[in-house]
Amino acid sequence: MKERLGELKHVGIAVEDLDEAKKVYCDVLGFDLEDEMEVPERGLRIAFLSAGNTKIELLKGISPESTISKFVEKRGAGIHHLCFGVVDIKKTIEGLVAEGIEMIDRQPRRGAEGDMVAFLHPGSTMKVLIELVEER
Amino acid sequence: MKERLGELKHVGIAVEDLDEAKKVYCDVLGFDLEDEMEVPERGLRIAFLSAGNTKIELLKGISPESTISKFVEKRGAGIHHLCFGVVDIKKTIEGLVAEGIEMIDRQPRRGAEGDMVAFLHPGSTMKVLIELVEER
Repeated sequence: MKERLGELKHVGIAVEDLDEAKKVYCDVLGFDLEDEMEVPERGLRIAFLSAGNTKIELLKGISPESTISKFVEKRGAGIHHLCFGVVDIKKTIEGLVAEGIEMIDRQPRRGAEGDMVAFLHPGSTMKVLIELVEER
Repeated sequence: MKERLGELKHVGIAVEDLDEAKKVYCDVLGFDLEDEMEVPERGLRIAFLSAGNTKIELLKGISPESTISKFVEKRGAGIHHLCFGVVDIKKTIEGLVAEGIEMIDRQPRRGAEGDMVAFLHPGSTMKVLIELVEER
């Protein structure tokens, strides 16, 4: 059966300076700041902005071990991932694996906002890092 | 005055092999192919997929001079740009420039789908290439 990814929930953008990024994206481009949080266990500070039909997630690594810090060190700031909603994340993962997609997370785990999430390996998706989130 | 970018119209993804990309994004991930076109003057072949609330634009360079061919050669395949709708593109560009944003296109030009578009320089937006499109 064909798996079906749903709506684009957010675009993750890795930044070097979160205050500077909020100035540009909120004060100049006009996106509304919806929420801001620290996720110490993942070494992240995150700002969620509304873009109407989807969200922008500004990601700042606050520990050197954070995947975002490593991404910025290796590739520089920029778009980091796309997050799509799915109805049943376990079933979707099973279906994707059966189709030959490599998963970073074979088992869903709890994301920054408390939902169950899992990442696909970019090697399976034209070098695009895709996150799945189970819709509530 | 604060400029306001509207909804995310599409996410542009630069690919090396468009048929392979369509297989993954349509046949496996389940996005619907909406349209496919060649834009010879920009050296591009483009497939538009629906993701419900937004679109995915798969971009394949078909001439070595195309910006997408150069992007893929330099950085590899992956997410290329985000396109946001605006009401009045000329007025938005004026406002952004007044706020210190560097534009790649100071004057809007006609995009692949016939709408007026303009790109912001990624140096002004945390290394994210942003396209504006005037909503019809």
